[in-house]
Amino acid sequence: MMLARIHGVSVGAHPSFLDREGFGRREREVSPSEVEDLVAYQLGALSAIAAGEGVSLRHVKPHGALYSMAGRDAVVADAVARGVSGIDASLVLFAPPHSELIEAGQRAGLRTAAEAFADRAYESDGRLVSRSLPGAVIDDAGVVAARALQIAVDRSVTAHDGSVIALDAETICLHSDTHRAAVLASAIRRALEAGGVEVRPVGRHSDA
Amino acid sequence: MMLARIHGVSVGAHPSFLDREGFGRREREVSPSEVEDLVAYQLGALSAIAAGEGVSLRHVKPHGALYSMAGRDAVVADAVARGVSGIDASLVLFAPPHSELIEAGQRAGLRTAAEAFADRAYESDGRLVSRSLPGAVIDDAGVVAARALQIAVDRSVTAHDGSVIALDAETICLHSDTHRAAVLASAIRRALEAGGVEVRPVGRHSDA
Amino acid sequence: MMLARIHGVSVGAHPSFLDREGFGRREREVSPSEVEDLVAYQLGALSAIAAGEGVSLRHVKPHGALYSMAGRDAVVADAVARGVSGIDASLVLFAPPHSELIEAGQRAGLRTAAEAFADRAYESDGRLVSRSLPGAVIDDAGVVAARALQIAVDRSVTAHDGSVIALDAETICLHSDTHRAAVLASAIRRALEAGGVEVRPVGRHSDA
Amino acid sequence: MMLARIHGVSVGAHPSFLDREGFGRREREVSPSEVEDLVAYQLGALSAIAAGEGVSLRHVKPHGALYSMAGRDAVVADAVARGVSGIDASLVLFAPPHSELIEAGQRAGLRTAAEAFADRAYESDGRLVSRSLPGAVIDDAGVVAARALQIAVDRSVTAHDGSVIALDAETICLHSDTHRAAVLASAIRRALEAGGVEVRPVGRHSDA
Repeated sequence: MMLARIHGVSVGAHPSFLDREGFGRREREVSPSEVEDLVAYQLGALSAIAAGEGVSLRHVKPHGALYSMAGRDAVVADAVARGVSGIDASLVLFAPPHSELIEAGQRAGLRTAAEAFADRAYESDGRLVSRSLPGAVIDDAGVVAARALQIAVDRSVTAHDGSVIALDAETICLHSDTHRAAVLASAIRRALEAGGVEVRPVGRHSDA
Repeated sequence: MMLARIHGVSVGAHPSFLDREGFGRREREVSPSEVEDLVAYQLGALSAIAAGEGVSLRHVKPHGALYSMAGRDAVVADAVARGVSGIDASLVLFAPPHSELIEAGQRAGLRTAAEAFADRAYESDGRLVSRSLPGAVIDDAGVVAARALQIAVDRSVTAHDGSVIALDAETICLHSDTHRAAVLASAIRRALEAGGVEVRPVGRHSDA
Repeated sequence: MMLARIHGVSVGAHPSFLDREGFGRREREVSPSEVEDLVAYQLGALSAIAAGEGVSLRHVKPHGALYSMAGRDAVVADAVARGVSGIDASLVLFAPPHSELIEAGQRAGLRTAAEAFADRAYESDGRLVSRSLPGAVIDDAGVVAARALQIAVDRSVTAHDGSVIALDAETICLHSDTHRAAVLASAIRRALEAGGVEVRPVGRHSDA
Repeated sequence: MMLARIHGVSVGAHPSFLDREGFGRREREVSPSEVEDLVAYQLGALSAIAAGEGVSLRHVKPHGALYSMAGRDAVVADAVARGVSGIDASLVLFAPPHSELIEAGQRAGLRTAAEAFADRAYESDGRLVSRSLPGAVIDDAGVVAARALQIAVDRSVTAHDGSVIALDAETICLHSDTHRAAVLASAIRRALEAGGVEVRPVGRHSDA
């Protein structure tokens, strides 16, 4: 957390199903009240730990299967948004572009940020390729960096069938468990800066 | 939580070691930073859930083995107090009378409340009789109620060897997992009211 | 386990998804190898604990959502059966009548026992009424006992719409978490004995 | 497990306290029956998974804090030995040389194997240096390999104060979470073979 202040980054919560064995990436039956509670629980816990370090959270992004379900299911999406807005209505909610989760965030009065993935393959309809399929995760630094630049500058991403999808994203995700993620992060940063894109923390305070 | 507002009670956090199998009642090796983190984590999570219901927490009491260890070990006690004060310095810290935890709370600038147990037997030196010994838990409603009144009015408790210990307590604990706890709670309430003792929530706001 | 030998009952394993929060009753995405592994893991653990008490397991019945999924999905069913047969091919597999799980057990060379539920309402197509619906669990002792007798003698059960379903069951389930389960168990036992039905452990050894 | 058969290695169980957060390396209050149960549970689970792969277990070694406690406390040691012998009395119990655990294993009729650590520093009294102290873990390949050879050939180990301790070990431990453990393992293997020491699986069957 000290590093957050030193390096000028912002910190967000990444709430997930309670599913260590599956790393939160398996969908499951779930009730809206369970979703709201788990978002509140995890967000509250991280906020407290951050507060102890003098840092406040700026954004929330559901993880794994919860993110996928909230992206397409309005009931789950509203439960996530309620869980966030009940704790801190100034948090920014990260969500897939044009998703149910974006709309739920707006209904709940939250600021939202549409998100694209530099290290994940897309279907031609804008969904992510399932992790159970080959090629779902992209870990070539050159390819990942070029995709990040395409997302930021061209406002598009190239799907795995070669089609180009318009994608109006405000934030780009790189997974910390993608192979050699730190190398990929450096490559993205250099590509964005070389392309004239300023990298800034999302958040409640303008840094301009 | 709705019930909290309806019934005029206050809500507190009861942070514990992560030990479901032992119900948090087994002592363990632990570092101060682990203690601080687990207090912050659990306090933050409960605060968030309470906030979603429109309720704010008023007190914190470590559970089980963490309570015992913090009561006698200044390092653990300071870690608990830091975990609390880093999150919300207006919370009241419950602790054994004259314990390391009372002193740690005061060092951390927290308001403290000395606590006595209506349903637990005491050694003559003021410590609780270990739960591994017979008679450690008292579940006779008449006895429990009389002990509560003795604590509140006489400022003392009778130890299991018959000696009377001075005990200046501001709050009385009844465990929800003591046999027929609801019946015991009613008996305590009636005894206190019959004895002219007013029962009030501990907390940051005066209710007078 | 000592009680098993004293009372002439048999002991079985009840493997479940790793889902304490949902008591194993929530369906989830799962791969066949995960199912096989969790059945083997839980069956192995219980077998070892039973062996320490001088008792050997006689049957296996998947719990909750795993039971439902294995009942209708051949891939999950085969994974359960492989998990069982890899550990002890003499175990009896409990499964819904005419289900994918019965067939998977037979493919794996296991002895199977079709199971009916005394305390759960049935749809007219033979599936259980979802626990999320009212009336899904039956806890009236007279009704439960009469249903058990109907299952044992008439080889049928009356669905919640009043239709009568043929059901050829070898074993009857009563859930230990149904309200007043011990009272229901006594009522079932008395009804069966009064109806001339002998109650015996299912298992590998003939008790005749 | 397939690899076990291909590479001629043997597989053992490594039962631990239920303490993921502390990786099983924190001591705790524990009753003998809890120890016996957790050994049986984990040993049974692994045996079942191994059996599904056609492999049988050959040895058992308690992990972390359970190993330390069983090494010096006869009550814990006997509970471990009972947990093992109740499941499979042909398993070899790994334990510190001259420890309470060696003696408990022998009392329980188990074959035991005294163990030394190539990658852990020793106190001059033969105990391991606590992991909380600097230098407790040794990860220099040359040093680790030389220590392994000293253990195997000279029947001794050099403590961190320079004194040489006699140590009659039958098996050498290298931790898989020591930095670059695979490199260390290769170095040990080469050093032992160069020193004329044959490396063989410990176990119930003679491989001669």
